[in-house]
Amino acid sequence: MEHRPSEDELIAKYFRPMAGEGGMALLDDAARLAGEAGRDLVLKVDAIVGGVHFFPSDPPQDVAWKALAVNLSDLAAKGAEPRGFLLALALPPDWTEEWLAAFSEGLQAGAEATGCPLLGGDTVKTPGPLTVSVTVIGSVPAGRMPVRMAAQPGDVILASGTIGDAALGLALRLDPDARWAKALTPAQREHLLSRYLRPQPRLALGPALLAYAKASMDVSDGLVGDLRKMLAASGVGGALDLDAAPLSEAAKTAIAHEPSLLERAVTGGDDYEVLCTIEPGQVEAFRSQAAALGVPATPIGTVGSAGDPFVVLRHGAPVSLAHGSFSHF
Amino acid sequence: MEHRPSEDELIAKYFRPMAGEGGMALLDDAARLAGEAGRDLVLKVDAIVGGVHFFPSDPPQDVAWKALAVNLSDLAAKGAEPRGFLLALALPPDWTEEWLAAFSEGLQAGAEATGCPLLGGDTVKTPGPLTVSVTVIGSVPAGRMPVRMAAQPGDVILASGTIGDAALGLALRLDPDARWAKALTPAQREHLLSRYLRPQPRLALGPALLAYAKASMDVSDGLVGDLRKMLAASGVGGALDLDAAPLSEAAKTAIAHEPSLLERAVTGGDDYEVLCTIEPGQVEAFRSQAAALGVPATPIGTVGSAGDPFVVLRHGAPVSLAHGSFSHF
Repeated sequence: MEHRPSEDELIAKYFRPMAGEGGMALLDDAARLAGEAGRDLVLKVDAIVGGVHFFPSDPPQDVAWKALAVNLSDLAAKGAEPRGFLLALALPPDWTEEWLAAFSEGLQAGAEATGCPLLGGDTVKTPGPLTVSVTVIGSVPAGRMPVRMAAQPGDVILASGTIGDAALGLALRLDPDARWAKALTPAQREHLLSRYLRPQPRLALGPALLAYAKASMDVSDGLVGDLRKMLAASGVGGALDLDAAPLSEAAKTAIAHEPSLLERAVTGGDDYEVLCTIEPGQVEAFRSQAAALGVPATPIGTVGSAGDPFVVLRHGAPVSLAHGSFSHF
Repeated sequence: MEHRPSEDELIAKYFRPMAGEGGMALLDDAARLAGEAGRDLVLKVDAIVGGVHFFPSDPPQDVAWKALAVNLSDLAAKGAEPRGFLLALALPPDWTEEWLAAFSEGLQAGAEATGCPLLGGDTVKTPGPLTVSVTVIGSVPAGRMPVRMAAQPGDVILASGTIGDAALGLALRLDPDARWAKALTPAQREHLLSRYLRPQPRLALGPALLAYAKASMDVSDGLVGDLRKMLAASGVGGALDLDAAPLSEAAKTAIAHEPSLLERAVTGGDDYEVLCTIEPGQVEAFRSQAAALGVPATPIGTVGSAGDPFVVLRHGAPVSLAHGSFSHF
């Protein structure tokens, strides 16, 4: 029978190598993080569950990367610099050291790529599926965190990167032989699949958001639904122009062959892009700085007034989307 | 069929009432915590799983209290003041609003009793058992957090409160009709059961720990095993005098009727007391301040030198404990 290492052995073997200074090499039972004068903390927790948020057959490296990245995406949207993360890992009865080695490899890759060391954690057993809960801690200059509810009438709404790739990547996994899927080049298929499996938090965008953004949040539950939440939290209406939604070449190809996929692209989840609003006079300055930071930012709509509805436009006319929470307007 | 509220509805109904300022009433997607000049952060995450760390039939209020308290106990041992917590809650298929209402009631009671507001969270579905992961954030004066690995030869080892009550409370739950159990008064039974169900983190002890403690950690996995970890992390040996272990009247009664329970008391888990080491010349000053803060602190042993073994003494002679990791010396 395979030797099952103790929690202490697991920590020493798999997690200590990625611990930052604050984790004191994970030898202590609590993590210390040095205070930073003049900065506020930004905190976020997200849990992902096997069979719910990822496929149990997903490579462990990708599960680990995603668990960290979905949290860092929230920090990115707040313009925060990562300080570190804590991990609560619930291992199912059939876990193996091979799995854990690959998982910790992916976690370390994510931690190194984003400058976000492991500060501490807890490993427990569960009779249920693998559950990974990650808490990330970042910081911003004091008083400067852009919040979700700060969209102002007249602001321009922008999205970073491209929208819908992850949702189409998921669709591709669920139906790899779909007619539209056959129209994709191998590179396009890989692009969509990778956007779903290995989201890239837009941490580079931070300085531009801190300089210009009014409201900001990450897009994780679908562009349309997340924008609706932002406008509702800000107490305003607005218009989203679907024709302006930034699409990758892969997404454009897929939608050209299956037009209904546009709706999936703008309502599906897992984009991990940034959605923000900017005063009209500052949009070009923001886009220039964002581009200089390596992140394209595309205007996709306008914030309306308090009494306005939220409308989604296609070819200049309001459309009603069948999926998600948008069937009622 | 029962209406299943959305995550947003759950947050508004059950969690927003206990959110602190940093949680912005949980309307934003990340929490902000104002920086504090001259202070370091102390962070800890712990997950508890239904059927593993608590009985699925435990009152939801107690499950919530325990999930928060076991983390706050780590802050307490570090002399930290709580700043807030984040919650990742994985709900099983059969969850009910009645359960969640009681759970959030217990969580709010814990948050209010300890001055530790909810800053943010994530609620997900799981096909497995209820899993509650709590991350607590506290702070200490910069550079002052007492660590586990700082025990020095000659230091006196002290424990707060009483040891073993929770382990005996668990034994009582598992075998309520044991011979020794019948010797307990109703108040003594209730004391032991309550120590298991509703641990009370020793947050009051903070100022005394910051003033005097060399090494400090909380006792959660059994006094003997946790002291062994502290000494090993400090690179020293030491002696634990079991005759000096502070026991409640309930524990004394139980052990008088069933002497083998002493071993269970000092190796069982869930004490959530503080274990610390103090220079001999400062022990009385520490104990006085601790008593003034309402927390008894009892000397239970001495830190040895680097080459010394760790010995557990009973009636002045080394003993070998059958359970836990102490069968090998």
